[in-house]
Amino acid sequence: MRAIQYRTIGREPELVDIPTPEPGPGQVLLQVTAAGVCHSDAFLMGLPREQYTFGLPLTLGHEGAGRVAAVGAGVDDGLLGVNALVYGPWGCGQCWHCAQGMENYCSRAADLGIVPPGLGAPGAIAEYMIVDSPRHLVPIGELDPVTTVPLTDAGLTPYHAITRSLGKLRAGSSAVVIGAGGLGHVAIQLLRHLSPARVIALDVSEDKLELARSVGAHEVLRSDAGAAEGVRRFTGPAGAALVLDFVGMQPTLDLSMAVAGVGSDVAIVGLGDGQAAAQVGFFRGAYETNVAVPYWGARHELIELVDLARQGVLDIAVERFDLDDGVEAYRRLLAGTLRGRAVIVP
Amino acid sequence: MRAIQYRTIGREPELVDIPTPEPGPGQVLLQVTAAGVCHSDAFLMGLPREQYTFGLPLTLGHEGAGRVAAVGAGVDDGLLGVNALVYGPWGCGQCWHCAQGMENYCSRAADLGIVPPGLGAPGAIAEYMIVDSPRHLVPIGELDPVTTVPLTDAGLTPYHAITRSLGKLRAGSSAVVIGAGGLGHVAIQLLRHLSPARVIALDVSEDKLELARSVGAHEVLRSDAGAAEGVRRFTGPAGAALVLDFVGMQPTLDLSMAVAGVGSDVAIVGLGDGQAAAQVGFFRGAYETNVAVPYWGARHELIELVDLARQGVLDIAVERFDLDDGVEAYRRLLAGTLRGRAVIVP
Amino acid sequence: MRAIQYRTIGREPELVDIPTPEPGPGQVLLQVTAAGVCHSDAFLMGLPREQYTFGLPLTLGHEGAGRVAAVGAGVDDGLLGVNALVYGPWGCGQCWHCAQGMENYCSRAADLGIVPPGLGAPGAIAEYMIVDSPRHLVPIGELDPVTTVPLTDAGLTPYHAITRSLGKLRAGSSAVVIGAGGLGHVAIQLLRHLSPARVIALDVSEDKLELARSVGAHEVLRSDAGAAEGVRRFTGPAGAALVLDFVGMQPTLDLSMAVAGVGSDVAIVGLGDGQAAAQVGFFRGAYETNVAVPYWGARHELIELVDLARQGVLDIAVERFDLDDGVEAYRRLLAGTLRGRAVIVP
Amino acid sequence: MRAIQYRTIGREPELVDIPTPEPGPGQVLLQVTAAGVCHSDAFLMGLPREQYTFGLPLTLGHEGAGRVAAVGAGVDDGLLGVNALVYGPWGCGQCWHCAQGMENYCSRAADLGIVPPGLGAPGAIAEYMIVDSPRHLVPIGELDPVTTVPLTDAGLTPYHAITRSLGKLRAGSSAVVIGAGGLGHVAIQLLRHLSPARVIALDVSEDKLELARSVGAHEVLRSDAGAAEGVRRFTGPAGAALVLDFVGMQPTLDLSMAVAGVGSDVAIVGLGDGQAAAQVGFFRGAYETNVAVPYWGARHELIELVDLARQGVLDIAVERFDLDDGVEAYRRLLAGTLRGRAVIVP
Repeated sequence: MRAIQYRTIGREPELVDIPTPEPGPGQVLLQVTAAGVCHSDAFLMGLPREQYTFGLPLTLGHEGAGRVAAVGAGVDDGLLGVNALVYGPWGCGQCWHCAQGMENYCSRAADLGIVPPGLGAPGAIAEYMIVDSPRHLVPIGELDPVTTVPLTDAGLTPYHAITRSLGKLRAGSSAVVIGAGGLGHVAIQLLRHLSPARVIALDVSEDKLELARSVGAHEVLRSDAGAAEGVRRFTGPAGAALVLDFVGMQPTLDLSMAVAGVGSDVAIVGLGDGQAAAQVGFFRGAYETNVAVPYWGARHELIELVDLARQGVLDIAVERFDLDDGVEAYRRLLAGTLRGRAVIVP
Repeated sequence: MRAIQYRTIGREPELVDIPTPEPGPGQVLLQVTAAGVCHSDAFLMGLPREQYTFGLPLTLGHEGAGRVAAVGAGVDDGLLGVNALVYGPWGCGQCWHCAQGMENYCSRAADLGIVPPGLGAPGAIAEYMIVDSPRHLVPIGELDPVTTVPLTDAGLTPYHAITRSLGKLRAGSSAVVIGAGGLGHVAIQLLRHLSPARVIALDVSEDKLELARSVGAHEVLRSDAGAAEGVRRFTGPAGAALVLDFVGMQPTLDLSMAVAGVGSDVAIVGLGDGQAAAQVGFFRGAYETNVAVPYWGARHELIELVDLARQGVLDIAVERFDLDDGVEAYRRLLAGTLRGRAVIVP
Repeated sequence: MRAIQYRTIGREPELVDIPTPEPGPGQVLLQVTAAGVCHSDAFLMGLPREQYTFGLPLTLGHEGAGRVAAVGAGVDDGLLGVNALVYGPWGCGQCWHCAQGMENYCSRAADLGIVPPGLGAPGAIAEYMIVDSPRHLVPIGELDPVTTVPLTDAGLTPYHAITRSLGKLRAGSSAVVIGAGGLGHVAIQLLRHLSPARVIALDVSEDKLELARSVGAHEVLRSDAGAAEGVRRFTGPAGAALVLDFVGMQPTLDLSMAVAGVGSDVAIVGLGDGQAAAQVGFFRGAYETNVAVPYWGARHELIELVDLARQGVLDIAVERFDLDDGVEAYRRLLAGTLRGRAVIVP
Repeated sequence: MRAIQYRTIGREPELVDIPTPEPGPGQVLLQVTAAGVCHSDAFLMGLPREQYTFGLPLTLGHEGAGRVAAVGAGVDDGLLGVNALVYGPWGCGQCWHCAQGMENYCSRAADLGIVPPGLGAPGAIAEYMIVDSPRHLVPIGELDPVTTVPLTDAGLTPYHAITRSLGKLRAGSSAVVIGAGGLGHVAIQLLRHLSPARVIALDVSEDKLELARSVGAHEVLRSDAGAAEGVRRFTGPAGAALVLDFVGMQPTLDLSMAVAGVGSDVAIVGLGDGQAAAQVGFFRGAYETNVAVPYWGARHELIELVDLARQGVLDIAVERFDLDDGVEAYRRLLAGTLRGRAVIVP
């Protein structure tokens, strides 16, 4: 089968032909119908050799959707033919976190060598992929896999970061979204749909600010030196109740701290350069501002997102690429010229 | 193998010899090391034929512990030899509730015909039992299965009923436990360990009041006509922040409503005669008293309970019976002469 | 000054001329700009003499707005001229509930003889009213008092009943509103604005169902014998996550229990005939359905509602009456021919 | 009357004789029965002139208890003779935060020039003090003011920092307390009483570790280079669910981040040198560790603490000083030779 693999440190990914895998005991084989392209793929391919820990060659893609083509021993064959999303942050399924569906925070994955597809295990940007357990499938029925597959990360990551803070988004509150790209433009819609918060979006690109406004941001602002003042003009002295930083560079983290209000939450979602850090201490921001780095989301949260998609309330911007053009999708990602999410359709 | 089965409507259970089962795909065979006897077993055996829906013959026992003796296709054989508790409220594992470990509230179990062991599926009061999935095992290592097995229901049910209300058990609050038997005497300990609430226990039996006091109740009271006044004397005008009714007869439900304070939670845990109901309406109790019938508990809650058992902070009163004496254990249960939980050791 | 008073048990209220009050120490005198008419006024005027405890004569009106005309000793005279709503459920201000703004649940009001305006203390349906403390004023600036005054009860009561359950209104959930009158039509808007829940409204009147739809209900249904089935068709097997019963008669309470899903909240808000009660027990509804009678709301919740009104997202239906026509407003209320809330403008 | 005042930047406080104040409208005059000495007093007296904003001369003491000696206009004279604690973080009483009792986070205090006693307004280390409103009094009845007065800050600050995180302190979790002095030794007791968490205390002083153990810490460790490893040995890979840093220097903040587990809370309570900051970002600690700087506590939380004190479950270590020896108390504080809290008794 064809697949897009990262094969050589420092080079771009390649379209290759590899053997079609077969499902082992407890596993499922999916015929991939859609696979998303993500900034974190670019981040890992930018790592120097001494920091790269994901194995080579690596079939890319941690956002996957497909139809069940075969099942391994011990798996109910009633699954054959089912269309599903792949819940990506695989865990052991048994520890305290996994028992609650928070496999993104599995206590034992590292010890057991469990890694997500596309981030260690073979990923979704291929004609077929192995899913390690049927519990990692969320059925989507007749939904279009191309516009639905970004829910698995571009949807799930902001969804988790927002729902954990919903209690703070009271009537009259404000939420700030920094970065209106693949994740950010979904975050804006989720905030509008899930909460009464007024949404302020920031980006350095006019195109993305326009996208932000079109998906429901109440206010959009250029993310420049005057941004904090601009946000404060909108939020008033209360500041923001929630700041979602989808960029994660030092200037956006500093901006996040500058606009967060008393008792607020700041979620650092964007990897940035992997070096930046928010400074939390006395005399550095509003009291009881909770700063954290959430990671991906839980199984039941992906189920909720699919419920939302069924209601038709989400408008995920995607650019579609053939598998043969998958390498080009990564080039466009790096150039910053994608509108919304790049989705590869094998 | 030997097993205790309910075979004839209206008669007492019987010790029988039946074939030892073999695990199918995805299943696990446990050699049972301990199994608990519960009031709900007696309840179902008291049902008239037209209301009895659990199948015959029924191997009893929804509280089980054992050592993995064999695994079916698709199950990791690293489990062999592991000592574990059986999480009893089996669900589909895939729906929104199950994805969070709340299989006790599975949305699809009824449609799929999934039933708990001892409550439809063959139960734990036997030499061997089938567990439908490895996810329903919680390892206990070196803990004594005899004193640990009651955690699966006599522990888990009050644990769930308490933890969902912990936010209300502030410093200075009171909790009321009605019925200090198998579940109640665990509830008292859990309240003491998990919260700052002052604990008031009520029962009709002096023995059980003594048990209540010995496991940490701050105050014990006879559950009679003057009970509400007695509780109010202790709680003051604030009333109780949480009432756990492990009896569930009309007088105890009325008592629960009479002592619950503004904004409190009342959990109806005891099945009673299956007919009683609390009356919720204006002019009938304190405002915003939340009355509910919780059921059993979640997977991660059983994991937490095992953590507690490891710390040695729980003192579960058990009476031990051989499998050959299992029928006698049910007689003692019906007679109300057990102290704590009856546990059968095959 | 002119005022509408309830003077004789069993007769309708009367327009009377009484002395204009003066503010005592710590008090504020408001020149009333708007006052709402509520079903609970009709309820108390329907009580037989032996159950009536509100004093006679009673100036009616627990929904009030006005401009500060004078202040008593110890009150900052910077308040003079301020336009404000009156937070109605007065408490002691010092107890544990009041310290959190939940004066609706004051622990000491009964002992201290503290009663709300229009429900014991002289109310708002008059040219002037006394407010017992400046903390019971919420400034509204330039907002129209006529469309804003219903927030004090018709807004605050559903707002409290909804916000306490917001955690259950996840994406994909459903909320049911029974009774689309003065409170219900606000509840529908609040649910839409605060949560992602799908909203199903029920009423016996076509006019009110039309109002319900116009303010955002996703689905409207006649509240008749087939209502539970109709709601279930919409919610699917999950049932409703929240049921708000603004009627409170036995048939609507039974309907509430029939449509509430596992782990849901049922809030009994409507007084009904003051006799009805929901039955909570095993085999009578979904597990862990929490049934409660919340009452009015908290100070900070009224502040949040005013923030919402400032954003212009609420559309409160009101019918305006002169003070001279106030008695007629009560007649219309009893006849059930009001659309939204009757507001009296002195 | 006699009072301890900070009068000259850079010099130690002085015992002075000043006029006894009289209560203005809405105010209360307390005859002080006990007043606590706090590290933050030392912090502000250590500030250089250009950063010092608290006014001179400043009567010290933000922990106060006393008996109501006189009331101003508009205040109920039923308060005369009442023994009470002073809730210190005064706010406007009207904004969204204050309406919920969170005057520590008043939105308008800065604009209105409202400052706490001893931190701008005249403080409690004097024979008499003015309390700006009766709502800032919490009655203590017959409790000893000397051992009770530290609840107002040394109790309230950790109480708030703990209760906001109680939901994370599940059975089997661990909490870390860094610094076992005035606040830390109360925090240990509160953790033990309010939660099931295992408590690990760290300090550089053997005396304080002994105090920590005597008030209930499960484990005590020297806060040195091997501390993180020591804590991890105790918590296992899960790490701590809550870290309370009562020191706030860079090494303790780094330690906090090193031991905090996935989804935990880190509360920076100690002012340290006012310069240190925790670094929050990818690859710097466990995912979803929430780092925040909470400040003091809410009115209802102080009420809860007094309820706890009434139950006799707290053992506050105090050293008692006459007002004439108050300056000596500050010397001992700076020398680090106090055991528990210094309390001045006029």
